[in-house]
Amino acid sequence: MNLDGFLYPSSIAIIGASRREGSLGRVFFDKLVNYGYTGKIWPVNPQAADINGIPCYPSIEDLPGTPDLGVIMVRKDLAVEAAELCGKKGIRNIIMITAGFREVGGEGIKREKELMKVVRRFGMKLVGPNCMGIINTDPQVSMNASFSPIDPFRGNVAFLSQSGALGVAVLEMSKSLRLGFSVFISEGNKADLVDHHFLDYLATHNNTRVITLYMESIEDTAKFRKSASRLGRQKPVIALKAGTSEGGAKAASSHTGALASPARATSALFKQCGIIRAETVEDMFNFALAFSNQPTPGGNRVAIITNAGGPAILATDAVEKFDLKMASLSDKTKNQLQTFLPEEASVDNPVDMIASANEKTYQKTLVTILKDPGVDAVFVIIVRPPVNTTPQMIAREFGEVLSGERPGKPVFIVLMAEKDENCGLTLFQELRLPVYAYPEAAVNSLAAMLHYEQWRKKSLGRIIKINADRAGLKHIFEAARAEKREYLAIQEVLNILYAYGFPMAKGKVIQSTAEAVTFLREVSGPVAMKIESEDIIHKSDSGCVQINLQEPEQIAAAYDKIMENALRVTTPDRISGMFVQEMIIGEHELALGMKRDSNYGPIIMFGMGGIFIEIFNDTSFRIAPLTDKDAREMIQDIRGFSVLKGFRGQSGANLEIIEEALLKLSQLALDFPQIFELDLNPFIVAPDRKNCKIVDARMRINLKK
Amino acid sequence: MNLDGFLYPSSIAIIGASRREGSLGRVFFDKLVNYGYTGKIWPVNPQAADINGIPCYPSIEDLPGTPDLGVIMVRKDLAVEAAELCGKKGIRNIIMITAGFREVGGEGIKREKELMKVVRRFGMKLVGPNCMGIINTDPQVSMNASFSPIDPFRGNVAFLSQSGALGVAVLEMSKSLRLGFSVFISEGNKADLVDHHFLDYLATHNNTRVITLYMESIEDTAKFRKSASRLGRQKPVIALKAGTSEGGAKAASSHTGALASPARATSALFKQCGIIRAETVEDMFNFALAFSNQPTPGGNRVAIITNAGGPAILATDAVEKFDLKMASLSDKTKNQLQTFLPEEASVDNPVDMIASANEKTYQKTLVTILKDPGVDAVFVIIVRPPVNTTPQMIAREFGEVLSGERPGKPVFIVLMAEKDENCGLTLFQELRLPVYAYPEAAVNSLAAMLHYEQWRKKSLGRIIKINADRAGLKHIFEAARAEKREYLAIQEVLNILYAYGFPMAKGKVIQSTAEAVTFLREVSGPVAMKIESEDIIHKSDSGCVQINLQEPEQIAAAYDKIMENALRVTTPDRISGMFVQEMIIGEHELALGMKRDSNYGPIIMFGMGGIFIEIFNDTSFRIAPLTDKDAREMIQDIRGFSVLKGFRGQSGANLEIIEEALLKLSQLALDFPQIFELDLNPFIVAPDRKNCKIVDARMRINLKK
Repeated sequence: MNLDGFLYPSSIAIIGASRREGSLGRVFFDKLVNYGYTGKIWPVNPQAADINGIPCYPSIEDLPGTPDLGVIMVRKDLAVEAAELCGKKGIRNIIMITAGFREVGGEGIKREKELMKVVRRFGMKLVGPNCMGIINTDPQVSMNASFSPIDPFRGNVAFLSQSGALGVAVLEMSKSLRLGFSVFISEGNKADLVDHHFLDYLATHNNTRVITLYMESIEDTAKFRKSASRLGRQKPVIALKAGTSEGGAKAASSHTGALASPARATSALFKQCGIIRAETVEDMFNFALAFSNQPTPGGNRVAIITNAGGPAILATDAVEKFDLKMASLSDKTKNQLQTFLPEEASVDNPVDMIASANEKTYQKTLVTILKDPGVDAVFVIIVRPPVNTTPQMIAREFGEVLSGERPGKPVFIVLMAEKDENCGLTLFQELRLPVYAYPEAAVNSLAAMLHYEQWRKKSLGRIIKINADRAGLKHIFEAARAEKREYLAIQEVLNILYAYGFPMAKGKVIQSTAEAVTFLREVSGPVAMKIESEDIIHKSDSGCVQINLQEPEQIAAAYDKIMENALRVTTPDRISGMFVQEMIIGEHELALGMKRDSNYGPIIMFGMGGIFIEIFNDTSFRIAPLTDKDAREMIQDIRGFSVLKGFRGQSGANLEIIEEALLKLSQLALDFPQIFELDLNPFIVAPDRKNCKIVDARMRINLKK
Repeated sequence: MNLDGFLYPSSIAIIGASRREGSLGRVFFDKLVNYGYTGKIWPVNPQAADINGIPCYPSIEDLPGTPDLGVIMVRKDLAVEAAELCGKKGIRNIIMITAGFREVGGEGIKREKELMKVVRRFGMKLVGPNCMGIINTDPQVSMNASFSPIDPFRGNVAFLSQSGALGVAVLEMSKSLRLGFSVFISEGNKADLVDHHFLDYLATHNNTRVITLYMESIEDTAKFRKSASRLGRQKPVIALKAGTSEGGAKAASSHTGALASPARATSALFKQCGIIRAETVEDMFNFALAFSNQPTPGGNRVAIITNAGGPAILATDAVEKFDLKMASLSDKTKNQLQTFLPEEASVDNPVDMIASANEKTYQKTLVTILKDPGVDAVFVIIVRPPVNTTPQMIAREFGEVLSGERPGKPVFIVLMAEKDENCGLTLFQELRLPVYAYPEAAVNSLAAMLHYEQWRKKSLGRIIKINADRAGLKHIFEAARAEKREYLAIQEVLNILYAYGFPMAKGKVIQSTAEAVTFLREVSGPVAMKIESEDIIHKSDSGCVQINLQEPEQIAAAYDKIMENALRVTTPDRISGMFVQEMIIGEHELALGMKRDSNYGPIIMFGMGGIFIEIFNDTSFRIAPLTDKDAREMIQDIRGFSVLKGFRGQSGANLEIIEEALLKLSQLALDFPQIFELDLNPFIVAPDRKNCKIVDARMRINLKK
């Protein structure tokens, strides 16, 4: 979608501009003017002839032309009308600053609906409502159409924020890090334009190299995923997702539902589309600094240069924590370092040049280390030297080296000093060397770069279409809905799962001992038997389950016993039969499941049964649709994977059939939006396909769909 | 130990003071003078009559009296002699600034030994060598005897740093947070005075309320633990331990050894003595800010006040992440808030006063929330308001409220704005309200306070002395040492473990089938049999193990078979017999172990066998000696504890006998420093004591001890 009308307008109407100092209408107007907007500014205000010399127009109709962009900041009760007038005037792009819409509930929800009707009627595009505006630092347009009290530095980081206030805070705090922005878009309520529209646009925005994103909700997970993963192949997308507390998820009724927390769903989605997840605003800054300034690291071998031992030890600890590697310096490198470093220095990694190191020492050491082919990235730690030099002088010296050909390796500065005028921060940033206050932040940022590169290089996999007789299954859902049955009967569940070719253990609902005996002969092995009745939920506790039945006599006895127990709890008309099923003895128990989330859509879960899930919560999640790669990765993601591969000589599991089952589950979830929760548990697996069987399944549907 | 001579000297000799601008001797001199030291300064320099008007003395002998403190910063080759002259002059306290001692290896190690000889000969106390000096901000002495380029603020935080450079960096960076210090001690090589001496001193230092500690090594774990836990009962100790990378630990040969990483040993020790562990310098700052300024929280119910939604959502996420609880506000509180907050505001927690909130809104909301008995702590989030007010004005307003009676509840300010002159940072700090840039840091700090309070309130437990015939065991170690056997024979191990009353499965080394049959009758159950030979390590692989032998005939056959297989690998003279043992069938397998660490002493490990350890690394560690509470907690610390308690109706384990075994292991490790590694694995347990037996044990000794 082309959003140039928002980012590169040649004229902007400010509907609700004001002369009154301190008012929002005035602050906005001043910002736009003072930041040096290159286009035409048309303030609309019925009570003023001009604002600060720029002529005002009494109404939208009176504008001398059709502006590319209309920014509305009138009172909430006038906002929809203003949008309508914009539509009539032919304005195609609107930023609605005004608040009092969906975010306040009640009347606001209605107001937002009306606003969207107007927007659709005129085929307009809308940013907001309830937003802070847009900034584009490109000199071609020099547009600060926002309330940000501080103008951000120009740079290559785009920033999309669902929270206006947080967005402005980020712009403000980023100044002290000298992080530069290309564009800032305050998305507000995302009533019309949402994340994926902006992501698509930024893919071709030349000034933008890195995208940062603060989000509280996802409007259309499928489209978001598509846009984010397409964009991610070219440019890194760093996102901070707020609102991942468990709260709601705890109320879920199914196994999968209880485990599929918003936090885990977010990680799953981000993993699938290669988004670099920031856990905090600070992470977001740190990562953006790295991606914004540094070349792609070729590997994970890290060298550390320092003038103080302590911080280098902390950096080394962090290197291990973030799964990077301390580089082994070559003899050539060490020999060269020895020619100019003092005797007390360490020429091993970390290279401790000791406190006497001056700017020349730093420069020569950096140049030497960068040449070592065994080094992929360098951390330069600077503790303010007691004498001899300043960080500023070191920065200047680095400038002379780096002004020519840039090394193809990332260099991170860790400056453990107060950020005063001779700390060199500005110089370092001009050299595009990111500056961190703490070694851990720098190391974590390199790790983020490496993870991103790994994702970028590997295939996303493909979605395998599973053919199932969908039309033939519809009546099952319709019947359940008509009868208001939230949980489907076992035979219904089985029929659905058979249609998708899930490897189900053989089982059927029978009505007599004779039928059971026939079934026993068919499966030629022991069977289990349990009552089928909506009234009996906890079947074992009610004595309504018998296992390991091998002989016809056992079957008969079990049938009578179960029926006797069942009739203590319910009446014959409430019993729909007896479920008999072959007994499966396998090596390992798995649990697969799906939960439909209002925000994320179907969340697919995978884990191993027993203590793996119950005690260690050893599960993995992905959002449907799954690609074959997603399915494979979610099996590999759990710690119990080593057991499934065959742990210490014990036999493992057939991984192929598990992968297939996950793909089928994904397809089933997409085919039938009525399915709200589905547990396939236990799925008993062994090395041979034929010994892998799903033994129980439970499906809950949404009666409203 | 009284260290007043270092912290409150009435006279200081600077040995190596210099007139030359920029030299260390001059920088130090100037610092001391300019910071306003209240005592006498006696520079020693043979080449100068005075420095900046303060008379110099040509040598230590010539000093006009005996100073309380001598600070030495001469060339390394003159340093020991200078210390000796100090001794002769009667100086009792020395700070050795000079570097070139143990930290450089070789000659330096020798130099440090000589220095210590001198120190001991004269009964002096020494800080350093290779340190940055000491600062005491107490106006009584106003002493900056260090190279810190920036004077820290006065406050109640003591800071001990093993790294001088890192220490100075911390003092410098802490200024922008307005964190104030009572004393700073650069410990250097800790040749004489070490952490526990300083901790003991700080226990009674009135100006110090919080202790922060940067450490790379621990000199005497037992004393450190004693001092730290004693001090911790009165004042919080926050420590950052550097150098926790695995490196060395990976080379360990035993099971326990491989798992007992430095990082885990550090957590264990810190847990035992209630030290608040900082993972980074940033953590250390954040925690210190909280402890230094805030009252003890009475509980974990948190209220959040904000003028922006986004940051409040992030704070709420953090509250859950750090296991705190969002407070439920009372109806009274909500009603009161409604009387002055606008309609669009949220009076539920988090309380969103929306962007129009001014300083009065903040003040009234804070006062109202603090009165709610359901609230234990308050986070005040401030995003720079677009209009109406400034953080500075909010701070001023808070000042008026808080100037009277302080609320007994912690209040944290989260100021998401650039730290410029009207951000209010100074005012907030004067009000002793800690200011954080990010909500997560503030929430994490409250969590640290709560954890500390929990530790402080609970008993440390007591060390239970286990009586064992130690004298009777000595010969076993002596024999192994004489024969240079690193691993003890199984019978030797058993004899040691019997002496301590470990619940060993019955077993003995026998020499004939007849003996084996006698043993079988004694235990009246199936037995296992395996070869005893130093040459055969992997007994199963060599066919030298047989299990589940129930009949005399089986015994005879097994004996012959094992012997036959053994003789393929070794010769009869290298076979010391056959080990027969009762077979134990229990519910759960445990693994207990001990590894002696050069830094930490005996590290005790506890875990469950099988996948618990192998896949999930579900283990807990403590440093010996264990108290009964330590033993109990280390059992409860593993995730598998729910299995040991009896998971989902299955039978659990006898916890008492496990606790006893851990205490015995601790005692054994302390009694015999020769034991280097000890694995008790598997320890098969069940609910009944009599069914809990240790089935195998392996002991490695240090042949040099």
